[in-house]
Amino acid sequence: MDKKGILVVVSGFSGAGKGTIMKQLLEEYPDRYALSISATTRKPRPGENHGREYFFVSKAEFEEMIVREALIEYAQYVGNYYGTPREYVCQQLEKGKDVILEIEIQGALKVKEKYPDTLLLFISPPGAGELKNRLVNRGTESKAVIESRLNRAWQEAQGVENYDYFVINDDLEECVQEVHSIIQNEHARVARNHAVIENIRAELKDFAKGD
Amino acid sequence: MDKKGILVVVSGFSGAGKGTIMKQLLEEYPDRYALSISATTRKPRPGENHGREYFFVSKAEFEEMIVREALIEYAQYVGNYYGTPREYVCQQLEKGKDVILEIEIQGALKVKEKYPDTLLLFISPPGAGELKNRLVNRGTESKAVIESRLNRAWQEAQGVENYDYFVINDDLEECVQEVHSIIQNEHARVARNHAVIENIRAELKDFAKGD
Repeated sequence: MDKKGILVVVSGFSGAGKGTIMKQLLEEYPDRYALSISATTRKPRPGENHGREYFFVSKAEFEEMIVREALIEYAQYVGNYYGTPREYVCQQLEKGKDVILEIEIQGALKVKEKYPDTLLLFISPPGAGELKNRLVNRGTESKAVIESRLNRAWQEAQGVENYDYFVINDDLEECVQEVHSIIQNEHARVARNHAVIENIRAELKDFAKGD
Repeated sequence: MDKKGILVVVSGFSGAGKGTIMKQLLEEYPDRYALSISATTRKPRPGENHGREYFFVSKAEFEEMIVREALIEYAQYVGNYYGTPREYVCQQLEKGKDVILEIEIQGALKVKEKYPDTLLLFISPPGAGELKNRLVNRGTESKAVIESRLNRAWQEAQGVENYDYFVINDDLEECVQEVHSIIQNEHARVARNHAVIENIRAELKDFAKGD
């Protein structure tokens, strides 16, 4: 079986419970996964730590990272930069860890373009009604905000066809296990095992000759 | 999640333990899987039953099945016909069962051509040495037969690139669970969930309009 780590992008509708699933996955399998930490130029919020939630950098630093291609992907959002530093991701993959990027659809497609063997997972609640209920039940958002979130979710759903798996989060623990087994099974993909197959083939050829 | 059954082809080197894995899988999950039964013109061996190991038919009957396209694939081997009757497979898929065909590489590729969403699994022992040992340890085969088997395995290994997964049978029970989870995860493939995704998208659009 392929021992190199797999780059995994996890996206999903806001309100799909993606963050909770990732947290749980990393708690249950700390040796298998590494979560990529984004760099951003936005200011830290209370309780956020440099190197935990984000790498907080200046605009000049971020633009310097762009220039020396130190980012796998980046985007601007509400006047701030967000991006995925390449170095940490590559280190963890080399160690054999599956590295999870929790990013949005546009970023995901950029990553897939650069690294075609990236595994793309999309997390969804069981239905749109469920998504609406979760947003309403938070009780913190106005009707206009909820509608704009749902509109955004609808736009996000445009790119889902480019993903590999559409995982429904009905029960948290079941969903965590499903995500885990999808990623682990990916190691058994023929496309990731050419070297292993080539070895067996060469050995068989020798044995068949009567060695 | 996609509720229709998936057509699964399982192939593997002879001596890889494929038959045992399938038997175990069907015993553990009788409600999820159906094993396709081949039709053949060869004579039943002692202990074999019509409709259990094979459907035993005459050459005329088999050729009539070919003419009316009642077979998904068929081949001739040592003067006998072997083929996969379509009707049973389709019935079981409609019922939502994942249908397993245990056939060889040539047949597998014919099935994939006709039904492109077929999932192809290849079962292998951990290495060619292991395969040789298993054949030698059976103690029933001469050196010449073993070499011809290994040669055949080497030839089979030529088509493995067309498969989706390369599953290593190191520990029987682990391998059964891996095969099970690969097949079950396949139901979450985006390509098998277009209708589900389309529904959520349509609902989101309505909600975002404030319905």
